[in-house]
Amino acid sequence: MTLLELKKAVVAANKELPKQNLVKYSWGNVGAIDREKGVVVIKPVGMPYEELTVDNVSVTDLDGKILEGPFNPSVDLPIHLVLFKAFPQVNAIVHTHSTYATMWAQAGFDIPCLGTTHADYFYKSIPCTRQLTDKEINGNFEVETGNVIVERFKDLDPVAVPGVLVASHGVFTWGSDVWDAVHKSVVLEEIAKMALGTRLLNPSIGPVPNSLMDRHYFRKHGANAYFDHDDHGHGMVDHD
Amino acid sequence: MTLLELKKAVVAANKELPKQNLVKYSWGNVGAIDREKGVVVIKPVGMPYEELTVDNVSVTDLDGKILEGPFNPSVDLPIHLVLFKAFPQVNAIVHTHSTYATMWAQAGFDIPCLGTTHADYFYKSIPCTRQLTDKEINGNFEVETGNVIVERFKDLDPVAVPGVLVASHGVFTWGSDVWDAVHKSVVLEEIAKMALGTRLLNPSIGPVPNSLMDRHYFRKHGANAYFDHDDHGHGMVDHD
Amino acid sequence: MTLLELKKAVVAANKELPKQNLVKYSWGNVGAIDREKGVVVIKPVGMPYEELTVDNVSVTDLDGKILEGPFNPSVDLPIHLVLFKAFPQVNAIVHTHSTYATMWAQAGFDIPCLGTTHADYFYKSIPCTRQLTDKEINGNFEVETGNVIVERFKDLDPVAVPGVLVASHGVFTWGSDVWDAVHKSVVLEEIAKMALGTRLLNPSIGPVPNSLMDRHYFRKHGANAYFDHDDHGHGMVDHD
Amino acid sequence: MTLLELKKAVVAANKELPKQNLVKYSWGNVGAIDREKGVVVIKPVGMPYEELTVDNVSVTDLDGKILEGPFNPSVDLPIHLVLFKAFPQVNAIVHTHSTYATMWAQAGFDIPCLGTTHADYFYKSIPCTRQLTDKEINGNFEVETGNVIVERFKDLDPVAVPGVLVASHGVFTWGSDVWDAVHKSVVLEEIAKMALGTRLLNPSIGPVPNSLMDRHYFRKHGANAYFDHDDHGHGMVDHD
Repeated sequence: MTLLELKKAVVAANKELPKQNLVKYSWGNVGAIDREKGVVVIKPVGMPYEELTVDNVSVTDLDGKILEGPFNPSVDLPIHLVLFKAFPQVNAIVHTHSTYATMWAQAGFDIPCLGTTHADYFYKSIPCTRQLTDKEINGNFEVETGNVIVERFKDLDPVAVPGVLVASHGVFTWGSDVWDAVHKSVVLEEIAKMALGTRLLNPSIGPVPNSLMDRHYFRKHGANAYFDHDDHGHGMVDHD
Repeated sequence: MTLLELKKAVVAANKELPKQNLVKYSWGNVGAIDREKGVVVIKPVGMPYEELTVDNVSVTDLDGKILEGPFNPSVDLPIHLVLFKAFPQVNAIVHTHSTYATMWAQAGFDIPCLGTTHADYFYKSIPCTRQLTDKEINGNFEVETGNVIVERFKDLDPVAVPGVLVASHGVFTWGSDVWDAVHKSVVLEEIAKMALGTRLLNPSIGPVPNSLMDRHYFRKHGANAYFDHDDHGHGMVDHD
Repeated sequence: MTLLELKKAVVAANKELPKQNLVKYSWGNVGAIDREKGVVVIKPVGMPYEELTVDNVSVTDLDGKILEGPFNPSVDLPIHLVLFKAFPQVNAIVHTHSTYATMWAQAGFDIPCLGTTHADYFYKSIPCTRQLTDKEINGNFEVETGNVIVERFKDLDPVAVPGVLVASHGVFTWGSDVWDAVHKSVVLEEIAKMALGTRLLNPSIGPVPNSLMDRHYFRKHGANAYFDHDDHGHGMVDHD
Repeated sequence: MTLLELKKAVVAANKELPKQNLVKYSWGNVGAIDREKGVVVIKPVGMPYEELTVDNVSVTDLDGKILEGPFNPSVDLPIHLVLFKAFPQVNAIVHTHSTYATMWAQAGFDIPCLGTTHADYFYKSIPCTRQLTDKEINGNFEVETGNVIVERFKDLDPVAVPGVLVASHGVFTWGSDVWDAVHKSVVLEEIAKMALGTRLLNPSIGPVPNSLMDRHYFRKHGANAYFDHDDHGHGMVDHD
């Protein structure tokens, strides 16, 4: 993939966020990495999605130095960089404040696996980070936000759990490419909505049995997958 | 009805699912049976609705053997087959993870009959299956999912109760043809939403009196029906 | 107003129900009376809104005898007739199962006046009827449904309280003409949604002070109204 | 800015309210002040947004005397006038009964700062006024509504807290110009929705740490802001 192709993908994926009702105004961003070239492409800060083009999208190196683009990159760039460095299988990241995912993040709760919709995409709970300390907040805030995510994944596989809630903040998802990462954001928001309603109906409901989580996850992922996961149009297809 | 007509109906009914906001991505499928020919037509696995045509829709026999179509049928085909065999009056089945119905399925609760909207379509509660055992999950999972539905209907009439919640999973509805089955999915989702709000307002509310359930159900169904149930355009009309 | 003009108004007002997201399929109807001619115009039973025209809308006398139209009138016609007879100031009635209003009806609760949005339109609570008895349900069901509404208004003014919840069923609103009645349905649905959220936040919140109910209601209604209530386009304008 | 330009801005901002799903019918208004000329431009009472033009918008002086426009100004004009006089940094005001903000207003609760979405825009809680007394309600009602808002801001900075809930009523936001004020209304509504869901999930959740509120607020506002807050198209851009 050329840099121009990566820019086009990042531009298109950012524009998908408002179409999928994941953002208001410019409350979200998609970034992607070309690991061979060592460059990251990301939405500029405060840029409305409809104005984003391959000519004004930001390109930086892995230290955040601006290589191309007339504007500053998203203030969330340092979070993306921490995650790209910590998670070598991840090539694209989406950050939003999508409504229902943010409710769970603000409540400070992991989203338990309450059904097969969840199990098809996220293996066990969708984790929520701890709160940052005052020292972290007053220090290198965005870098520390990336760090608490990485800390939360100390014993988790970011491929099996392709997203995280940041306490009191919002949600990050990731994937093999921008469309995979956007897809996970759409799914996580729907899972968060379903889980809220489920808990309101039955506050004592716990996660589904491990056997069901395993069955659903592994029929779609890994060596024994039998769920035909073709990539029709943008990698956005899914189970039926 | 020719096989081509059945294919057209199945294609059109699948495309109705996203229009009715019952699915995200390809999270749902419609299948139908021609009982004379002994064939089932169903959406292929992972196929986006907009790409579905009479040329790529799947046709199988009642054992799931592929007769036509370039792709694998939905992984849910075995569930459809179990239901078509167990419920001889059913000619079409819809499966979705629609948001509010799935909340109830994840909570593991039957939806009680809380009002006449429900009573007009579903006689008494909309049942929820039991959880599958680990052995069933690790065995022939999709077939066993069909089996727990049939087990739940041991003492229920699938014509009077044209849908079911599968615990920790989603929802199935059925009918005399694809439009009837889709109609029931739309209605069940709305009933599930209303029932959630009703329970939040009044947690102790119980089902409506049997007399009201009977009156509403039987003014639309059976020999003494006086509710004019014409089939204008797609069989999607309803009471007013 | 000629009969044709009344038919046109009833047809257009029925078509407004799906546009305002008050109905699914044909779950709702608008009826209107010409008190001079002694005729009622109402949607036929089971008729999709898009097929409704001045040529197929139903016209009956006050005993429900069909005067014009090729189809049977709505099964709810007897409810409309009871209300038109009991409430002489009412010239149009809307019935729906709109989502949030129906939640309150299914919960069996009056909607208390929790704010000025409510107070601007409904003086004090929006009442909910009692449950019908088995005898009423098994008797002349639709007439008895009208009767419990009238019974509920024994000490209420249908002009000051232009709507009612029918327990375990849905909602009726009314007005001086079809647009006024539709307007009240839209408003009642929004009030019901707001009241649900208010109660979830603060279960012990009671109605607003009488002084506030009076001030808001009477600045829009009656001899001392100073709220300019012009009728721009369909009588659908409102306060700002 | 000429008076015509201000009229154009007020007309366009009013039309934005239904586009942003903040109002039903004409339940909301935008007003703006030209402090040099001493004039206020505001929507006329009961005017549907689609009929509003620079020729029928209302222009008044700071005592509410009509200077231009064929209709009476909004009945809420006295509230706008009180706020424009009390808050010299405010040049535009938006009033709505938006659904989720009104739920909090009807519950009589401040919206606590539960996350960074809130902290980016509103410094600490979004306050709710006290109830008006009977004497205030029966007196100069709209002026007294303005007065309780000003009273609530006795120890608050209207620039750092650009909005307020009026108990049992609705919501006001304000800003440096009409687009800034509308932007705040959209954001406040979303914050109110997120906060409701957060509280339902975790009733005991308190506000985020002061350090996080400070960090988010001051990275966007004040002398040390490093959040690039460009004004692309209508001042509606925002963080990413």
